[in-house]
Amino acid sequence: MAVVTRARNMRASDGVREDRLWRRHMEMGAIGATPKGGVNRQALSPEDAKARALLMSWAKARGFGVAVDAIGNLFIRREGTDPAARPILTGSHLDTQPTGGKFDGAYGVLAGFEVLEALDDMGQQTRRPIELVVWMNEEGSRFQPGTVGSSVFAGSHGLNEMLAVADRAGVSVRDALAQTLAAAPAPLRPGVGFPIDGYIEAHIEQGPRLEATGKTIGVVTSVQGSRRFTIDVLGEEAHAGTTPLRARKDALSAAVSIVSALERLMHDDTDTIRFTVGRFEVFPGSPNTVPGKVHFTIDFRHPDGAVLRRLGDQIATVAAAHAKGCAVTVTDLSYVEPTVFAPEVIDLVRVSADALGLPHMDMPSGAGHDAMHINALCPTGMVFVPCLRGVSHNEAESATPSDLAAGCRVLADALVALANR
Amino acid sequence: MAVVTRARNMRASDGVREDRLWRRHMEMGAIGATPKGGVNRQALSPEDAKARALLMSWAKARGFGVAVDAIGNLFIRREGTDPAARPILTGSHLDTQPTGGKFDGAYGVLAGFEVLEALDDMGQQTRRPIELVVWMNEEGSRFQPGTVGSSVFAGSHGLNEMLAVADRAGVSVRDALAQTLAAAPAPLRPGVGFPIDGYIEAHIEQGPRLEATGKTIGVVTSVQGSRRFTIDVLGEEAHAGTTPLRARKDALSAAVSIVSALERLMHDDTDTIRFTVGRFEVFPGSPNTVPGKVHFTIDFRHPDGAVLRRLGDQIATVAAAHAKGCAVTVTDLSYVEPTVFAPEVIDLVRVSADALGLPHMDMPSGAGHDAMHINALCPTGMVFVPCLRGVSHNEAESATPSDLAAGCRVLADALVALANR
Repeated sequence: MAVVTRARNMRASDGVREDRLWRRHMEMGAIGATPKGGVNRQALSPEDAKARALLMSWAKARGFGVAVDAIGNLFIRREGTDPAARPILTGSHLDTQPTGGKFDGAYGVLAGFEVLEALDDMGQQTRRPIELVVWMNEEGSRFQPGTVGSSVFAGSHGLNEMLAVADRAGVSVRDALAQTLAAAPAPLRPGVGFPIDGYIEAHIEQGPRLEATGKTIGVVTSVQGSRRFTIDVLGEEAHAGTTPLRARKDALSAAVSIVSALERLMHDDTDTIRFTVGRFEVFPGSPNTVPGKVHFTIDFRHPDGAVLRRLGDQIATVAAAHAKGCAVTVTDLSYVEPTVFAPEVIDLVRVSADALGLPHMDMPSGAGHDAMHINALCPTGMVFVPCLRGVSHNEAESATPSDLAAGCRVLADALVALANR
Repeated sequence: MAVVTRARNMRASDGVREDRLWRRHMEMGAIGATPKGGVNRQALSPEDAKARALLMSWAKARGFGVAVDAIGNLFIRREGTDPAARPILTGSHLDTQPTGGKFDGAYGVLAGFEVLEALDDMGQQTRRPIELVVWMNEEGSRFQPGTVGSSVFAGSHGLNEMLAVADRAGVSVRDALAQTLAAAPAPLRPGVGFPIDGYIEAHIEQGPRLEATGKTIGVVTSVQGSRRFTIDVLGEEAHAGTTPLRARKDALSAAVSIVSALERLMHDDTDTIRFTVGRFEVFPGSPNTVPGKVHFTIDFRHPDGAVLRRLGDQIATVAAAHAKGCAVTVTDLSYVEPTVFAPEVIDLVRVSADALGLPHMDMPSGAGHDAMHINALCPTGMVFVPCLRGVSHNEAESATPSDLAAGCRVLADALVALANR
């Protein structure tokens, strides 16, 4: 029995404590808590500073290293036996949507910290250092775009360009970051970005598939790509009582016809395509005036770049074919290629879940994550856990203590495997 | 030849002067003129008072009687040979939409005044008095509802109820009317409403049919009835990237499907049905969130009450059948029965146009008018003239001097025929 005990103790996951992980979520979720049980903790707000200070206080109590880089990414470092080896990173973000929940982002940070604490509790060493990172401004609510800390870290956005971004009140990232660091000071790590050897991010799924299929662990194979468009339909305002149908250029009627046609174009028996018209504005919006103008958005996502190209490139043609005499302008706003994670990390996550006896499934991520950017730097992967009914970006966002702990155990074993390579 | 000349002189239309009628439109259109060539002269505004004062100055120069009733309707009276006979009325309104034109309403007033002047110029007498009326607040822009002056005159709205209506700034009709009458004083005619023997209103068509068919005169047989509905579609907000189609309750997608189905329900080869979705609001309106709520309006009009009932009563059923898992609420806001004008007045208008050699057609009115209410009191009809491309409620509203004069000539002969009955 002694041998079995020793063997089991070698798994980092054995040190993960569900109660502690849950308590950390509740403590962190109290910062920026909303009356409806959600969290409003936008990037570089006073709440963001409080959240950073809380995490750093936990880190210091453990004796972990703390540092912040020039774009405001925060690092908590547990040393390895080979201090010169490139570290393994894990983490996510602490900022939320204005009406966000307790788990989106926070889970990946707190699960990463739980892994460091578990290793520390067990006195288990790793060859490489493991660093927990809190990426700055993933959500892009106060400052657009999102995933800024990770994209600057990966070099896909320029540091100065992102520091110059201003919020609606005209406050720059540079100034808001200075305020945040004054309220939650940490030693500066020079430059942005450094060599790393692997990255794994834990996150709630933000979709309903794990719950629907009774799986606890999502082995994330990719982040689907996305294309964004706007469509402007220009018709002609007319009197609703006097203008015959044949004399109308009804922008609403044309837009409705275009959306219906695009829904048919995007029909998909496998239900993999994500096609959303989220904003749809009608002018002048008077009940007795035929609308002269409609503006709407298209959010189109798919894990396969070839599908994104083929169907996305048909949008303008389909829209023009249903213009009903109106002028239709399709604007191609953005094109993000799908991210395919490293097979070795995907395997590690799958094997770790298997070894822990946790039901799992391979899946693409529907939402974008900081891991998309880090994937360009080193072998990268993600671990998903279920969230209630897939609801996210919502104060009602919810996850169970045991699912959160299960994902954390998978993360722990996969990270340690990477750190001991 | 003397006989022919005398016979022609007996027609009131011979006294109608196109140049004077056009000049009056330009003078009146200068009050509340907008930079884009339109008019903003809302009910009981300082501009309304100026317009009333201008009209009264013209009336006084002619020696016509002037009076105003308790709801602010203004009357200009040319006496008949039998002063005890019930008068014939003609008129329309001087108030406009906030971005209205020079002709909607003003034409019916100025054409009526031109008839009085024409008769005066010719020294032609009528048995009954002819009165020009300026109905208060037809448009319903500043104060809702519209056609207030005529509806109170006809007894379909209560005087005190309408005097208590307030604008967005909280100013009541009562107070705004007192201000208007202080700026443009006129003798008070006690009570509201008095016995009348006939009413004809001239108006621009506000639709494209006369222009499209090359007719100068529209012989208005009816005002189509209307039904108004609102539809609320309640779905569920969800993440656009992660939520599969099968798990969505997409309120926008359901609303689009409902509008398409209603367009099919309202299909009409004769192009008589008027079906308009003018307001269509989508919430929360974020490009990457599946819409949770849509609110839209339906404006449905037809000259035949049976069609209004049959199709209008199917709207809720059709909407429910295309709910796509959302909750759909249809609210039946209002139901206005079609107005059918008096055959004798319709005939008079048609015969007058024929005698003048003007191309004409029978047609229902698509828009509502004060004549709808007066039709309950006495034989009533309307004369339409073309307006450019049917555009109305718009600063670009336009009509030609010759078309306006042609309609005025028809009005003159028809009014005199009524006044000599």
